[in-house]
Amino acid sequence: MATQTNEYPTKAYGATAPDSGLAPMDITRRGLRDDDVLIDISHCGICHSDLHTARNDWGRTTYPVVPGHEIVGTVAAVGDAVSRHKVGDRVAIGCMVDSCKQCAHCEMDLEQYCKQGMVGTYGGRDRHDGSTTHGGYSERIVCRDEFVLKVPDALSSEHAAPLLCAGITTYSPLRQWNVGPGSKVAVAGLGGLGHMGVKFAVAMGAEVTVLSRSESKRQDAMDLGAHDFLITTDREAMKAKTGYFDLVLNTVPVRHDVTPYLHLLRIDGAQVLVGVIDKLPELHSGILLGRKILSGSGIGGIAETQDMLDLCAEKAIVPEIEMIRMEEVNTAYDRMEASDVKYRFVIDMGAFRGA
Amino acid sequence: MATQTNEYPTKAYGATAPDSGLAPMDITRRGLRDDDVLIDISHCGICHSDLHTARNDWGRTTYPVVPGHEIVGTVAAVGDAVSRHKVGDRVAIGCMVDSCKQCAHCEMDLEQYCKQGMVGTYGGRDRHDGSTTHGGYSERIVCRDEFVLKVPDALSSEHAAPLLCAGITTYSPLRQWNVGPGSKVAVAGLGGLGHMGVKFAVAMGAEVTVLSRSESKRQDAMDLGAHDFLITTDREAMKAKTGYFDLVLNTVPVRHDVTPYLHLLRIDGAQVLVGVIDKLPELHSGILLGRKILSGSGIGGIAETQDMLDLCAEKAIVPEIEMIRMEEVNTAYDRMEASDVKYRFVIDMGAFRGA
Repeated sequence: MATQTNEYPTKAYGATAPDSGLAPMDITRRGLRDDDVLIDISHCGICHSDLHTARNDWGRTTYPVVPGHEIVGTVAAVGDAVSRHKVGDRVAIGCMVDSCKQCAHCEMDLEQYCKQGMVGTYGGRDRHDGSTTHGGYSERIVCRDEFVLKVPDALSSEHAAPLLCAGITTYSPLRQWNVGPGSKVAVAGLGGLGHMGVKFAVAMGAEVTVLSRSESKRQDAMDLGAHDFLITTDREAMKAKTGYFDLVLNTVPVRHDVTPYLHLLRIDGAQVLVGVIDKLPELHSGILLGRKILSGSGIGGIAETQDMLDLCAEKAIVPEIEMIRMEEVNTAYDRMEASDVKYRFVIDMGAFRGA
Repeated sequence: MATQTNEYPTKAYGATAPDSGLAPMDITRRGLRDDDVLIDISHCGICHSDLHTARNDWGRTTYPVVPGHEIVGTVAAVGDAVSRHKVGDRVAIGCMVDSCKQCAHCEMDLEQYCKQGMVGTYGGRDRHDGSTTHGGYSERIVCRDEFVLKVPDALSSEHAAPLLCAGITTYSPLRQWNVGPGSKVAVAGLGGLGHMGVKFAVAMGAEVTVLSRSESKRQDAMDLGAHDFLITTDREAMKAKTGYFDLVLNTVPVRHDVTPYLHLLRIDGAQVLVGVIDKLPELHSGILLGRKILSGSGIGGIAETQDMLDLCAEKAIVPEIEMIRMEEVNTAYDRMEASDVKYRFVIDMGAFRGA
């Protein structure tokens, strides 16, 4: 595959060590391959994974790391073989920038489960030159055309950004488990993912209940369109909903006991984990023997992500966001850890670029 | 409800303490209610649960206990309102003898999940007089007519017995998860449940693989009709089958790590636990996020159990059994714990009754 020789010096924000915080750094974007698209980034959402990776919470970060996988921008140049995108198009990139596109899973439009491994938008390993990928906390990015999504006109760039991870991560399992009119859906955790889970489930016609440890989020849940609110520490209230739900969408991002949520499921109901990447505490098999399902889901494929963006444009389903400047990212991380954001930070990368 | 006053003094075998072993004891069967059936027991299978209960392994046994929930016999008398069974019929009882028959779960023919609780065949609490139920290690039993199954002519009584628990416990999840021609099914554990799982899955047209920790059971697996055999301690062999199976039927009866079996599942494939009633070791959510399903299943409803018996008669699907006398039960328990039985002990209760 031909590669243009002119690389792109690029301003970015990244971490150099677990305790470094994020700071300005210079990176280089590769010269365009035939199937590459160069994107000037206008917005980038902040995901919990960004924070975990920057701080090496999962023990597998390679430094330096430039986070960001909720990327929206404008096409600035295209490789010689690219026809699906053209200069000036408003486009987006989510959690992956490449996969083999040939294995059984890629053939099923499930590139996130590519048998050779999807290439993560940051901290991934490029399939051609082996270099480490860098994410959206940067002026621009170069990405294989098939992994670049189109942002519909009706969707603003700042609202599109969080859909690329928080959106698809909650949309995909709701589709997968056939949520529709009459479905009884509970959403555990009301952060970036959870608040999109509520909006999607409501839009799909489900009866939606937010599960929370405390009363404090009741009004927020109702404002997002939820129909009910259940305090998980209220034993009587939880008991009253035993066997009630078709689906529990569990977006809680930290290790926790999933058993109380299993009790809420009807026979053949499913709890789908999308937030936690950790060991689950010991679980008694007895609850599962009541034909309760425990499963999980990871983002979604490219085609499904495009479907979601199109649906969000059509139905005006958009995240609740708080815009910040790139220099405010460390403060934003601290606030996110304290759950002090409704519900997603989005970085104004245009300002960062000086655009 | 009218109850006949003549009770039935009944010889039985039971345990009086965790370390008592099983020994002869005298119990009384209630006089017939209008909807009761009196059954002279001819055969009773021995289930792992019998052993666990007799020895109080689960910490909830009330003594004395008379185990046995794989019961076959002949109708000896019926209550005034019974029309579905008549004296002389060959009939069977499984793991439950009553339920409310009015709740949503009972309406779905899932009496095992009755919202008021199914009444276990032994160690259960009678819904009318509160007495403790006693199982099939006895001359005769009295049971509500709707929980008495018909044994088809083509099925011998000794072969029918293990179907009432080991059979339905494996048949039901295979049906529930739509196993059919072309399905790739793995069966973990090759005991009473597992060997029936293999036979049913083969009969349903699936490609069946037995999972075992050692080479020693390969020939047994093939003799039962399995198409392949996979040694779970062979890392390379396990890796080669990553993502291969639609369903793992997990019949292993002791606490163990279910993660290796999850890796064997295709996307949206399911591991269904039917054997273990214990806490599962910590499980990393990462494997579930690959859209792997962990679930479980408990026996089956009455209608489904009857369907299974009819299918077994039609297709000549029968368990492998070893007949013993009632007095040999303690030895049988020890052998069962050592996995020294192919594959189910059945007690000759006719000999015990002196019939």
